[in-house]
Amino acid sequence: MSSTEINVIEEIELDNPILIEALPGIGHVGKLAVDSMIDELEATKFAEIYSPYFPPQIFIGEEGMIENMINELYYLKDFGENKQDFIFLVGNTQGVSSEGQYEICMDILNYLEKFNINTMYTLGGIATGQPVENPKILGAATDVEMVEFLKESDIEIRYNDGGIIGASGLFLGLGKRKGIVGACLMGETPGYFIDAEAAEAILIKLSDLLSIEVNTEKLDERAEETRKMLEKAQQMEQEMMNKSSNQDVDDLRYIG
Amino acid sequence: MSSTEINVIEEIELDNPILIEALPGIGHVGKLAVDSMIDELEATKFAEIYSPYFPPQIFIGEEGMIENMINELYYLKDFGENKQDFIFLVGNTQGVSSEGQYEICMDILNYLEKFNINTMYTLGGIATGQPVENPKILGAATDVEMVEFLKESDIEIRYNDGGIIGASGLFLGLGKRKGIVGACLMGETPGYFIDAEAAEAILIKLSDLLSIEVNTEKLDERAEETRKMLEKAQQMEQEMMNKSSNQDVDDLRYIG
Amino acid sequence: MSSTEINVIEEIELDNPILIEALPGIGHVGKLAVDSMIDELEATKFAEIYSPYFPPQIFIGEEGMIENMINELYYLKDFGENKQDFIFLVGNTQGVSSEGQYEICMDILNYLEKFNINTMYTLGGIATGQPVENPKILGAATDVEMVEFLKESDIEIRYNDGGIIGASGLFLGLGKRKGIVGACLMGETPGYFIDAEAAEAILIKLSDLLSIEVNTEKLDERAEETRKMLEKAQQMEQEMMNKSSNQDVDDLRYIG
Amino acid sequence: MSSTEINVIEEIELDNPILIEALPGIGHVGKLAVDSMIDELEATKFAEIYSPYFPPQIFIGEEGMIENMINELYYLKDFGENKQDFIFLVGNTQGVSSEGQYEICMDILNYLEKFNINTMYTLGGIATGQPVENPKILGAATDVEMVEFLKESDIEIRYNDGGIIGASGLFLGLGKRKGIVGACLMGETPGYFIDAEAAEAILIKLSDLLSIEVNTEKLDERAEETRKMLEKAQQMEQEMMNKSSNQDVDDLRYIG
Repeated sequence: MSSTEINVIEEIELDNPILIEALPGIGHVGKLAVDSMIDELEATKFAEIYSPYFPPQIFIGEEGMIENMINELYYLKDFGENKQDFIFLVGNTQGVSSEGQYEICMDILNYLEKFNINTMYTLGGIATGQPVENPKILGAATDVEMVEFLKESDIEIRYNDGGIIGASGLFLGLGKRKGIVGACLMGETPGYFIDAEAAEAILIKLSDLLSIEVNTEKLDERAEETRKMLEKAQQMEQEMMNKSSNQDVDDLRYIG
Repeated sequence: MSSTEINVIEEIELDNPILIEALPGIGHVGKLAVDSMIDELEATKFAEIYSPYFPPQIFIGEEGMIENMINELYYLKDFGENKQDFIFLVGNTQGVSSEGQYEICMDILNYLEKFNINTMYTLGGIATGQPVENPKILGAATDVEMVEFLKESDIEIRYNDGGIIGASGLFLGLGKRKGIVGACLMGETPGYFIDAEAAEAILIKLSDLLSIEVNTEKLDERAEETRKMLEKAQQMEQEMMNKSSNQDVDDLRYIG
Repeated sequence: MSSTEINVIEEIELDNPILIEALPGIGHVGKLAVDSMIDELEATKFAEIYSPYFPPQIFIGEEGMIENMINELYYLKDFGENKQDFIFLVGNTQGVSSEGQYEICMDILNYLEKFNINTMYTLGGIATGQPVENPKILGAATDVEMVEFLKESDIEIRYNDGGIIGASGLFLGLGKRKGIVGACLMGETPGYFIDAEAAEAILIKLSDLLSIEVNTEKLDERAEETRKMLEKAQQMEQEMMNKSSNQDVDDLRYIG
Repeated sequence: MSSTEINVIEEIELDNPILIEALPGIGHVGKLAVDSMIDELEATKFAEIYSPYFPPQIFIGEEGMIENMINELYYLKDFGENKQDFIFLVGNTQGVSSEGQYEICMDILNYLEKFNINTMYTLGGIATGQPVENPKILGAATDVEMVEFLKESDIEIRYNDGGIIGASGLFLGLGKRKGIVGACLMGETPGYFIDAEAAEAILIKLSDLLSIEVNTEKLDERAEETRKMLEKAQQMEQEMMNKSSNQDVDDLRYIG
């Protein structure tokens, strides 16, 4: 019934890995942080994920080469102070409908079941709508112990305080139902640009929580690149929207 | 084919229970009333319901703990003047698409079939758009006898008068097709805030119809709490909407 | 796989009946005309149709009794000058999504296949956006002979001229693919009220094409009733929209 | 599970044909170019494609005859300098939802698998939002060799530069995953009218890439015809939208 396609590149064995999710979201905070982490720590890609619930489009990347909408899984073995295994979920997109979001998250969690994940961190941004100096990292979690653990790292706990929409929320919620302890870390960001500073702040806290070390020097450069690409993309799409006068493919209203 | 997940916590036997539905809606009138009823009467939860048609998100509740989007079933046995059994359907969300609404309602009704429900009340608010003094309770029903029964409790009958959208309408309609007698009680409410007064009015009428007694003292307090949480949530979402400049997950228009 | 529910009330045998479709649309032109026709000619209901792609709601009808969203099939045997059999498709709603529209239309046409329908008329309104005196009836058809037949009744043929959206268009198109000759009759109407005059005009042309006689006297009264109900419904829904401040069931944008 | 209907008209055998996709899009640039190509080169239609994800409507064409929403496949054998086989994918519509777009593209590519397509060109417009003199043709591709091949024909390569939304992007992306080398050619166009000039520019480049010759003389005439039809259609739909006051088939918000 499900239509998520998971192409396994390498069959691996991991020992109770920690899952870290950072799909695109507010200010690209989580994505920037974890893309950088994968790069710096030289994590290995082991699976590619496609879904018909991704946006029906492609990106044009470097040198005119196209890129499919994709989610990807990377791993690290015996890493950091605790000789811990890690799985990273990253990508260039999320599902575009309610049931698409659920299907993709559920299918990925089901596939990962064999690795016996006990702990999960999902990363995101939290939009302040105004300039942010020294972005705080806010958190929420699936149980009391995790909330306490976050507090020990001076992460401010959100409570009675709205929701977390999209993959960062859904993975946490679905994970909780499967007995996986989880936390969402959210970096304060104005929300309207690619925010390397918030990404750095979240990366520092995450490294602390995971007892690992990550170099954050290249984050600025990475943010700059991402920002340029997205600005062009948005500008182009905006022009198309405004000018195409909807000749062919309208947002239908059924009026016959 | 269906994807609704009904996790039964306790296998129970009930004798022609009356079903009372009160999922979130206008002014939270029904939800406030029945959440309070469950609390005061110490009803027991016997099933949790999840659906991929719920919004793809989680709520952040007390002390930073996350809450899944959920519908829940509670029961009471041999209760009230008539030693009647009751089932309550409550939750923090409804389905987000047309077919999602239908699937969830149908799956819940199908699951409940074994209890031989003969009668159903669905609760909601009816927005007046302006301040309301002494909120009236309006009603509609599946058959003439029920309409008469409502009138006896001084419930004003709506007629030739629009529709009831969402779970409160759909349960009544789908129930009617299964031969379940039903009524919808709608409390007048301005519609733009969590309305404890309308909830109290509806609770008083419902207690009357069911020949039970419910303490309504804590309704104000409960309304205040809900209001605070939702205001924060809305404010946050609004900011995200306005400021995120749709960098990642757009409302797609297909223009290629 | 399909979820359309067709409840057959009476098993009937018909001889190459003509199908007449008139689901709600612009100005309720087609619906008014055919509802009246069914009433005047005393056609018999033989099936009720439900779909999860109908809007998730109910209507409140006379005396506070609720009405499900429904499509209905009626028939007439050996009727009119030509002793012709007829099937009428009417109802209070259409599907609310693109694929819902297709599924409902396909399922109904598949069910009707056993009756060997050769000819189909679909009825609708065409909005002028301004007051209309002596509404014209416009037409389009699946083949040249039908176009000529319409012209003989002084129906003005539309050409290179946009589309027909919803059930009136889709039945014609899907019918054409099944080899059913069809025409769409569209009555000119301002489009913003229930238009008894346009309905009368379309009813007169249709009676002519079908070689039958229909009394149109009660159309005004029927239009007035429908108008009252819909105005109330719209007003109420509008108020709900404006005032509910979207507390519970938002039009989600995925921003996590 | 899939619902795409592919009606094969002629069973054909082809030798590593080149696929050319040109469904409706910005400025109708690709569609105009390839419709003209099919006409001039007398390509033969071999399959018709229908989907419930197409818009639920029909077009009214010449002489009042209705046209179904459709995609079509044409072929040419042993054509041009290289005695090459070609398949052309054209039509009057694209899918209207995210998953619809994916399903249609995937089903068509799966059907075409038996022909062993190695190379694919998808055509589209790129909106400038302002008048264009001497429209440039921009390109993007699935691999380095194809990018070089485009450059040799003086096609300007887009890079780090947004996306390609809809069928032109999706076919390229899904094709890449199947090992098909592909390129998208995009003609600069203001974007708000049917653009024969951009279509001519793209047709000249494409002929060059394919080593074939196509007469472009009738493009102006064809553009004029298409423009007239679409303008009428849009105007009509706009009026319907504005005036119908949403009496029957609303964009539902679930508020019960």
